[in-house]
Amino acid sequence: MLLEACYHVPRDKWAYAYDVTTIHLRLRTKRDDVEHIFAMTGDKYDWNRTFQEIPMEIIAHDAMFDYWEVAVRPKYKRLSYAFKLTAGTETVYMLDTGIQHQAPNPPGELYEFSYIHEIDVFKVPDWAKQAVFYQIMPERFANGDPSNDPELTAPWGGNPTIDNFFGGDLQGVLDHLDHLCDLGINAIYFTPLFVSPSNHKYDTVDYKKVDPHFGDNALLKKVVETCHSRGIRVVLDAVFNHCSEQSPQFQDVLKNGEQSKYADWFHINEFPAAVKVGIPTYDTFGFFGNMPKFNTANPEVKEYLLGVAEYWIKEIKLDGWRLDVANEVDHHFWRDFRKVVKKANPEAYIIGEVWSDSLNWLLGDQFDSVMNYPFADAVLQFFNGGMDGYSFSNEMGSLIMRYPQQTNEVVFNMLCSHDTARLLTRVGGDKRKLKLCTVFLFTYMGTPCIYYGDEVGLTGNGDPDCRKCMEWDPKKQDRELFDFYRMMISLRKKHTALTQGRFRFLQAGKNDGCIVYERIDDSMHFIIWMNNTDKSSTLSHRMETNDWRDALSGDKVETQKGSMNIGLDPFGFRILYRELKKR
Amino acid sequence: MLLEACYHVPRDKWAYAYDVTTIHLRLRTKRDDVEHIFAMTGDKYDWNRTFQEIPMEIIAHDAMFDYWEVAVRPKYKRLSYAFKLTAGTETVYMLDTGIQHQAPNPPGELYEFSYIHEIDVFKVPDWAKQAVFYQIMPERFANGDPSNDPELTAPWGGNPTIDNFFGGDLQGVLDHLDHLCDLGINAIYFTPLFVSPSNHKYDTVDYKKVDPHFGDNALLKKVVETCHSRGIRVVLDAVFNHCSEQSPQFQDVLKNGEQSKYADWFHINEFPAAVKVGIPTYDTFGFFGNMPKFNTANPEVKEYLLGVAEYWIKEIKLDGWRLDVANEVDHHFWRDFRKVVKKANPEAYIIGEVWSDSLNWLLGDQFDSVMNYPFADAVLQFFNGGMDGYSFSNEMGSLIMRYPQQTNEVVFNMLCSHDTARLLTRVGGDKRKLKLCTVFLFTYMGTPCIYYGDEVGLTGNGDPDCRKCMEWDPKKQDRELFDFYRMMISLRKKHTALTQGRFRFLQAGKNDGCIVYERIDDSMHFIIWMNNTDKSSTLSHRMETNDWRDALSGDKVETQKGSMNIGLDPFGFRILYRELKKR
Repeated sequence: MLLEACYHVPRDKWAYAYDVTTIHLRLRTKRDDVEHIFAMTGDKYDWNRTFQEIPMEIIAHDAMFDYWEVAVRPKYKRLSYAFKLTAGTETVYMLDTGIQHQAPNPPGELYEFSYIHEIDVFKVPDWAKQAVFYQIMPERFANGDPSNDPELTAPWGGNPTIDNFFGGDLQGVLDHLDHLCDLGINAIYFTPLFVSPSNHKYDTVDYKKVDPHFGDNALLKKVVETCHSRGIRVVLDAVFNHCSEQSPQFQDVLKNGEQSKYADWFHINEFPAAVKVGIPTYDTFGFFGNMPKFNTANPEVKEYLLGVAEYWIKEIKLDGWRLDVANEVDHHFWRDFRKVVKKANPEAYIIGEVWSDSLNWLLGDQFDSVMNYPFADAVLQFFNGGMDGYSFSNEMGSLIMRYPQQTNEVVFNMLCSHDTARLLTRVGGDKRKLKLCTVFLFTYMGTPCIYYGDEVGLTGNGDPDCRKCMEWDPKKQDRELFDFYRMMISLRKKHTALTQGRFRFLQAGKNDGCIVYERIDDSMHFIIWMNNTDKSSTLSHRMETNDWRDALSGDKVETQKGSMNIGLDPFGFRILYRELKKR
Repeated sequence: MLLEACYHVPRDKWAYAYDVTTIHLRLRTKRDDVEHIFAMTGDKYDWNRTFQEIPMEIIAHDAMFDYWEVAVRPKYKRLSYAFKLTAGTETVYMLDTGIQHQAPNPPGELYEFSYIHEIDVFKVPDWAKQAVFYQIMPERFANGDPSNDPELTAPWGGNPTIDNFFGGDLQGVLDHLDHLCDLGINAIYFTPLFVSPSNHKYDTVDYKKVDPHFGDNALLKKVVETCHSRGIRVVLDAVFNHCSEQSPQFQDVLKNGEQSKYADWFHINEFPAAVKVGIPTYDTFGFFGNMPKFNTANPEVKEYLLGVAEYWIKEIKLDGWRLDVANEVDHHFWRDFRKVVKKANPEAYIIGEVWSDSLNWLLGDQFDSVMNYPFADAVLQFFNGGMDGYSFSNEMGSLIMRYPQQTNEVVFNMLCSHDTARLLTRVGGDKRKLKLCTVFLFTYMGTPCIYYGDEVGLTGNGDPDCRKCMEWDPKKQDRELFDFYRMMISLRKKHTALTQGRFRFLQAGKNDGCIVYERIDDSMHFIIWMNNTDKSSTLSHRMETNDWRDALSGDKVETQKGSMNIGLDPFGFRILYRELKKR
């Protein structure tokens, strides 16, 4: 055994309470190196009577490692444990004190999960596990009320620039809810809605007021009520890292300098606050002088922003917040944010914008989820031919192992957003590849999100090109694509196996663009077949039963001599399922 | 390079703010495998202008790994980074996305330390870095007031049993402060003082009242004031995991069952609260029915206990709290505890009782320190001949790498306590070994603590034998040992190199009981030589300068041909130092 590869620490994603009775233990070993692992578990105050040796299972691989997991339910909420690893005739033990070849002498030197406290258990909202999100930039979705258009509004459908306006608004969203209901989504994530001088509105001037170009607070309330009545949850964008330089607080600082009562609301490194040779004398988002960064450690700022978070939940029965530039705001703030938000709405869904490893925020005390850009990157790379199935399965394994299971169930998976090129453009305009990406999105773990317009074939390079106006002319919409999205969303919503079932690759070979994977729970078993190559291909897999159906057509699909053989067009896919008896 | 051995995550002890301008990055590699590591650092919003490649240094080893560290001071508080590792002609890069052989394309795919927030920076009290603690069990230290003795008090110096009393009290402590000042300690940790039926008082009945057998609140205040006037800080024991079954709250639950207004103050799994066949129907410390566990998630309980924590800080100007069974109390509680305590006294020192890996509590939001039992175990094992110098150096390296530097500077190092056999007994009564252990304790990093009586030769096996009465008869005290402790304490207090200087093993060989190590800061350089064998031995080490003195005698010690040769008796030691020019 390669002992240097073995890894476990008694904390974070390696040892955590999944619920009030269950602890997940995870262990990493070199890939294909260890044959069996047993968790040696018990209560340290009564070891002999409580001792249990429980086999662990491999739940994921990446390029270098196998990842093992076991769920343990300690009788008295306390768990002491060690691991026994075997390969051939070799046995080693992993303990709090290190790795050794001698059997340990419990309960000394064991790892500890000291006590399961309900208050410390990471809980995520159940509804998010079943949700299919749709992201809307209100300025670009639909113009339902030309009377509130900004000056110099450009004609709908023109070329987006970093600062032009097209007149989209909340009335436009209301007018087009049929489109969303028809599509089948059950949650909307709105980019910012509050008063702001920009078209994207990520520089807020007034956090408690809907931008007049979008409508007013009453209209937002109506939008949310209407959405709720049609089974759609609503999440808004909380831009709490920074505000607009036009915000009254920052204006006061510009005017009164150190004497401003808001002087400590920001991080002013040198008065007067100004931009010198491109570098502001105050901390900002990036180096943008028009986006001064809040000092979220200042109790007044915290009270103000947490008040905003609570206000909208209570005022419009908001279902959650997406947190802009969440990684640059302090942890004390987010811990209190979670308390305030979950108190106002225990089912609120909290999604952070963090592009890199986000475990720091995903330990139960801050966010439920993050925007999963690494997921998008891996999926796009694979379906664009940039890696083989083997590497792709390793990438996905690595992403699964980043977070505890709670987050994996609601991690915000998307293939593009207002901050990236659009999906269809990212796959070089090849609809077949777009469909493979989308099938993967909707048959994978986590909470999927579609970016407005992807369902009708919108294209676009990076910002601002990815922020084009929604296409509402049915003749210019790709209705075939729309039907495809509708079908996939419907399929996902119908089956818990596709949302919360176990995920596993069945085939993902080296130098092979074809993959086969499964999702399975107590009621259903899905197998998804994908030919991610430009040649026709027949994929085969041994099947123990012969009761499979095509998930889209419902047709029976027969095995031959115990093997399922699936012929696929270039960039084709097939989804099979069978029903399982409820245990 | 063995890539499976390389480890870094952008969080906890691997990437943390040491202060408001400095980030420590750490990386693990297989031992003796990698030649150079560079941290590639910059601000992601202006990478090219801020990019710096900074060499890392190995700061510790253990049996399998080298541990590298670098301190980075980002100009704009934001840090994106990767690592470049080289060995021979091989170069690999470690990124947020994994390990690769191609050079990365910054700032994409880098690790991030998003922003240094002062509020999130882990701060520990400066005084604790210079402190030498003395642990007192008041019932066994000195009987200064026979009028408050419990009934059936046994004669001073008798055999301790689990439930007998000897009459020790706070007046006894006051009476013997000269002893402590003479010894030179500058901080006391008292085991519990509040009303409780037991001799150890770990089962509290009234948290705001000193046990009448020890004195009263006014006397405690006087003790603390007197200690402060003599330069001694005082830390008390907070037993917040559980209380006594005789506490008014639990008595109310016993009387009124589910109707008790305190029913939710505890974890009652089944009413009536009772002990059934050895197992209580309520959660307890261990399975002890007389120590019902508090429900610290109940806001009333939290307010009550945090009120206690604040009360004593304000009432008697307490310098810190040692937290009993700290690992079994919830994290939300400890986060709020830290806030309350540090607000009442920003210099308060918080030490948790956690016997195993404690990083979960040492990330800046909960404790400053933990009782370092693993340190005691490793030191005792080595100086009892249970491992060679090489293994010992690996053990210490492993312990150093458990925690961020902040905690390493104030981790509560002791060689025994009220919960273990006494030091002299643990070394088989061999004073020479006791001295080696003690020299190591006082020349190592962290905050050392002596258990009362060790300095005069008290012996004792595990509880209750380790809780013998203090010996006050000078004829029965080991005064030579006392003088040795006094000398070592004096040496430590005089030199910051011994408290906060860099620690490094210079010699620690396989199958060798001899070790040489150094402590060094800007002003002084110490080298400690130890012959941990039963044979005389001469240790040699190359020395670049010839300006060394014996730290205890002050005598000059000459090198010979550039080498220092130190002859040592069996279990002998020598401490050399030289003064360094202030940079």
